[in-house]
Amino acid sequence: MNTAELVELAQQLRVDSVRAADAAGSGHPTSSMSAADLMAVLLDRHLRYDFDRPAHPGNDRFVLSKGHASPLLYAAYKAAGAIDDAELLTFRERGSRLEGHPTPQRLPWVETATGSLGQGLPVGVGIALAGKRLDHADYRVWVLTGDSELAEGSVWEAAEHAAYEHLDNLVAVLDINRLGQRGPTRHGHDLDAYARRFQAFGWHTVEVDGHDVDAVDRAYGEALSTTGQPTAILARTLKGKGVASVQDREGLHGKPLPEPDEAITELGGRRDLRVSVHEPPEAAGGRPAPLGHLELPHWERGEEVATRDAYGHALTALGSARGDVVALDGEVGDSTRSEFFAKEHPDRYFECYIAEQQMVATAVGMAARGWVPYAATFAAFLTRAHDFVRMASVSGAGINLTGSHAGVSIGQDGPSQMGLEDLSMMRAVHGSTVLYPCDAHQTARLVTAMAGLDGVRYLRTSRGKTPVVYGPDEEFPIGGSKVLRSSGTDRLTLVAAGITVPEALAAADALQDEDIAVRVIDLYSVKPADVCTLRQAAEDTGCLLSVEDHHPEGGLGDAVAEAFSDGRPAPRLARLAVRSMPGSASPAEQLHAAGIDAESIAAAGRLLVGEAVVP
Amino acid sequence: MNTAELVELAQQLRVDSVRAADAAGSGHPTSSMSAADLMAVLLDRHLRYDFDRPAHPGNDRFVLSKGHASPLLYAAYKAAGAIDDAELLTFRERGSRLEGHPTPQRLPWVETATGSLGQGLPVGVGIALAGKRLDHADYRVWVLTGDSELAEGSVWEAAEHAAYEHLDNLVAVLDINRLGQRGPTRHGHDLDAYARRFQAFGWHTVEVDGHDVDAVDRAYGEALSTTGQPTAILARTLKGKGVASVQDREGLHGKPLPEPDEAITELGGRRDLRVSVHEPPEAAGGRPAPLGHLELPHWERGEEVATRDAYGHALTALGSARGDVVALDGEVGDSTRSEFFAKEHPDRYFECYIAEQQMVATAVGMAARGWVPYAATFAAFLTRAHDFVRMASVSGAGINLTGSHAGVSIGQDGPSQMGLEDLSMMRAVHGSTVLYPCDAHQTARLVTAMAGLDGVRYLRTSRGKTPVVYGPDEEFPIGGSKVLRSSGTDRLTLVAAGITVPEALAAADALQDEDIAVRVIDLYSVKPADVCTLRQAAEDTGCLLSVEDHHPEGGLGDAVAEAFSDGRPAPRLARLAVRSMPGSASPAEQLHAAGIDAESIAAAGRLLVGEAVVP
Repeated sequence: MNTAELVELAQQLRVDSVRAADAAGSGHPTSSMSAADLMAVLLDRHLRYDFDRPAHPGNDRFVLSKGHASPLLYAAYKAAGAIDDAELLTFRERGSRLEGHPTPQRLPWVETATGSLGQGLPVGVGIALAGKRLDHADYRVWVLTGDSELAEGSVWEAAEHAAYEHLDNLVAVLDINRLGQRGPTRHGHDLDAYARRFQAFGWHTVEVDGHDVDAVDRAYGEALSTTGQPTAILARTLKGKGVASVQDREGLHGKPLPEPDEAITELGGRRDLRVSVHEPPEAAGGRPAPLGHLELPHWERGEEVATRDAYGHALTALGSARGDVVALDGEVGDSTRSEFFAKEHPDRYFECYIAEQQMVATAVGMAARGWVPYAATFAAFLTRAHDFVRMASVSGAGINLTGSHAGVSIGQDGPSQMGLEDLSMMRAVHGSTVLYPCDAHQTARLVTAMAGLDGVRYLRTSRGKTPVVYGPDEEFPIGGSKVLRSSGTDRLTLVAAGITVPEALAAADALQDEDIAVRVIDLYSVKPADVCTLRQAAEDTGCLLSVEDHHPEGGLGDAVAEAFSDGRPAPRLARLAVRSMPGSASPAEQLHAAGIDAESIAAAGRLLVGEAVVP
Repeated sequence: MNTAELVELAQQLRVDSVRAADAAGSGHPTSSMSAADLMAVLLDRHLRYDFDRPAHPGNDRFVLSKGHASPLLYAAYKAAGAIDDAELLTFRERGSRLEGHPTPQRLPWVETATGSLGQGLPVGVGIALAGKRLDHADYRVWVLTGDSELAEGSVWEAAEHAAYEHLDNLVAVLDINRLGQRGPTRHGHDLDAYARRFQAFGWHTVEVDGHDVDAVDRAYGEALSTTGQPTAILARTLKGKGVASVQDREGLHGKPLPEPDEAITELGGRRDLRVSVHEPPEAAGGRPAPLGHLELPHWERGEEVATRDAYGHALTALGSARGDVVALDGEVGDSTRSEFFAKEHPDRYFECYIAEQQMVATAVGMAARGWVPYAATFAAFLTRAHDFVRMASVSGAGINLTGSHAGVSIGQDGPSQMGLEDLSMMRAVHGSTVLYPCDAHQTARLVTAMAGLDGVRYLRTSRGKTPVVYGPDEEFPIGGSKVLRSSGTDRLTLVAAGITVPEALAAADALQDEDIAVRVIDLYSVKPADVCTLRQAAEDTGCLLSVEDHHPEGGLGDAVAEAFSDGRPAPRLARLAVRSMPGSASPAEQLHAAGIDAESIAAAGRLLVGEAVVP
């Protein structure tokens, strides 16, 4: 298209944004209108994309970080011929693919779900990194962000990461329309303020009038010819551009235009321009085939092995068997044992430094490109990335997260380092799988099984060593459990997972010495939980006591209780968990102080079966 | 002290750090040694602090963001005479005040718990902001950070906020020892790399040899004479400085020195220098007294009012009655209704822009200074600050958080904007209170009650309007509930909260029309939950059905189940919750699709009482 046609195309995108929001009765037309010229030029002149083949390995990748500007995105899809006008007007209707904020679960051209601001650029970094270091493909990653969202620290984690990795295949297009939701941004139209920041982080920057299509075209060209560093295009724009009654005015965020017909007339009326988007270049498709047979590590039964060690070894073995497995870490790979993988597969290892949000975003971006990422840090520090995990689930992203150093059992380091909320956080993620192994062989099997699951998968590992209780060929189905002690005279069931399994076994032995038979269930699959085995135990023993190295809320105790929340008669339930704020102490002291060691379990067991001796 | 003495003091801090870690058998002496000169100069020359009166309003505030360098902090306390040598050697023992990472719950001189990196500067910004805009005091805030933690986005949220607010009472001291936990940082000893970034964000920077005490002294002086902007002192240091066998070497993070006696000898042996820390200037103490009588807003019964509106009005009223109440928002004050407070009390309102981590950190910092902060954003976006909320609980900080736009009932905006994990996240925080009001009067009362609680308090509000069901004088104790329907023939109990209360009432009415009497409990206090009322309902009706606009895990259903996890016989339990990924749809369509509207509740109720008609 020539300049005049590009201007027309941009007006069409504005008109269609206004129409879509008007049809929906909600939405963000003014946020769409500011970026219409930026989108028009990108779509016609620079994007290389086959809308009929969204999986084409040579396709550029476009991320709408300002996801609320979805009308603009859908208007662009229409201009590209990917959707028709009738579908455009289903915007925000129940069942429509055109949701308020775009998600890849509905639309094949969306790389990642957005709508929580400041996440598009981090995920774009992950995709661009996959392009450079994994796919070895020439696709470019375009991220359109707003200006309000640049206040999010995650944007600067991304900026740091992108420059450090020399991601010259990444272009951030900043739609600086100076108005946030409730008023002006901090820096208004001071483009230099943003330029200084991105430059300081190592980016190339271009400042441009975001409504001058020729200038925008040149800016994109400059970005594409920049090598060795990512480019940020800082575009001065006006919110609601093109309609005088709303242009550059406060109080009009997230609302359909008050006078849509007049606005459309002012914008020059409806058009039906069609863009011929550039074809992507040829590119090698498909992921690396599995390289070989999986040889998981073996240990001797009774040997003491930390599950975090088993994680590192198993992941390394999995990486040898599968060329699509990649590992990430938040600068604690020596603790999580990601470093084992790093040594064996340095080309597929990604150091994310202490930036957990960027770590999870990188995993999401790589998963979007078909890779199978395993990202690890301390369980406690995964809370830093909670919003990214939540959005990964909205995306339907298949990512593996491992949280090490779970619970009070880490010992002297104290509560800041103890994951005591992680099971709760991960259980509540839609479609998640939550696994908590107690020994090395179980860990190895679960690490392998995770790769084949949908959604967000979480593995919780422990710092200290635990005895190997399972053989190397034992299988651990997701949603299963292991009954470790059982008899026909069991009067109580202990439900444990991870670090509390050996404690529960020791408690069971102690109670057995007092002729109190108790069942012990290793509920390694916290979500989904093995309802059948739990219910059988309830029928057989009448009472279940769960024991967890986690706060009482949202973890193992709640998972067991949930299993009996189906309206059927329930057994007596009790739970031991970490109820006080720990301090520094040895691991054994911690377990005892929290009341989750063998002695405490046995004492609670005696109470529950009515055999407690009152001193 | 003169230069030679300062050098000696620094060596003493190193020796005592080595000794403390050696006594503990764990800890971070090398991370302490790099910052010993920085600490010595600060302690002797610039800090103004009365260790006998930690609450002195004129005291400077010191935050050890690199909390793992706690041996250095405790060594400094010893040098200042605040603790003795015997206590120093209790480091990391069970029951010792000297935890692995410092916390104000144990030590009166600690402003905020650290140990999750990248949080000290954000909290320091909150304290400095309190100093400038609330306390109107001359205290300075010193934050000692590591270099690894500068990869955290939260640091750049803080950098942005501090410069924007012209916090020239804030000095960030960056201990750039070039080595993180598992190896070199991204920028090593490239001080300019950090300087460029801080300058771009609007800070004054000073680069200095962090082992030259005179240069450090001059740098502090320059920071104190800088006006209008915060200062970052970029100090080039060596990890393990002073002991050749560990100095500037990898693989020695977080470990006692292998040869402590030789190290102490190399450092010149034990010393017992005592520092006379400068007295703080006189300052007005105490918080503003309550200004007047609390006049909560009133509504008509049956009127439709969104609980978020009630939040805004009640908080404004509370702000009029109490001079110590402040409000913060993450650039969505027009949605959360924080803007009502902003209009009435602009001097106590803090716009945090889209930076939820900084918002919570600001609240923590202000709470540390005795203020009563209420911070609000969408419930979904509070997940962004999960790690800060977790650490607030480790600090024992009294902060109020409000999450608006909870659940699918927000409607068309879709899942990215829906808080569906927030109850889970907040329940699992140690010592938290979780409140979820269903009407305006209840909201107003709970907003008021929150101010007087310990720990982290969470209020969940709704976007849409709900009928006013309670009178203006009704009381809502924390840990209580309201029985809204009850009879002697109840066959089922519906447990609802917030948006599902009117749905449960409508379901109860529908079932009553079929001669099925059901009890309805409004469990507005999700944590602590009203176990007595729930158990009475269990005894009376035998079956409880919870209904929540939240994922099934960690929320209301789990809270009800937890109430029956005390080992006593349990009733039949069932739960309705959001089990599928929502898309865009109207609020009513959302509630129906999720199976939590009146119709769905009634259908489930019929099933549970055995009166379902199979078609």
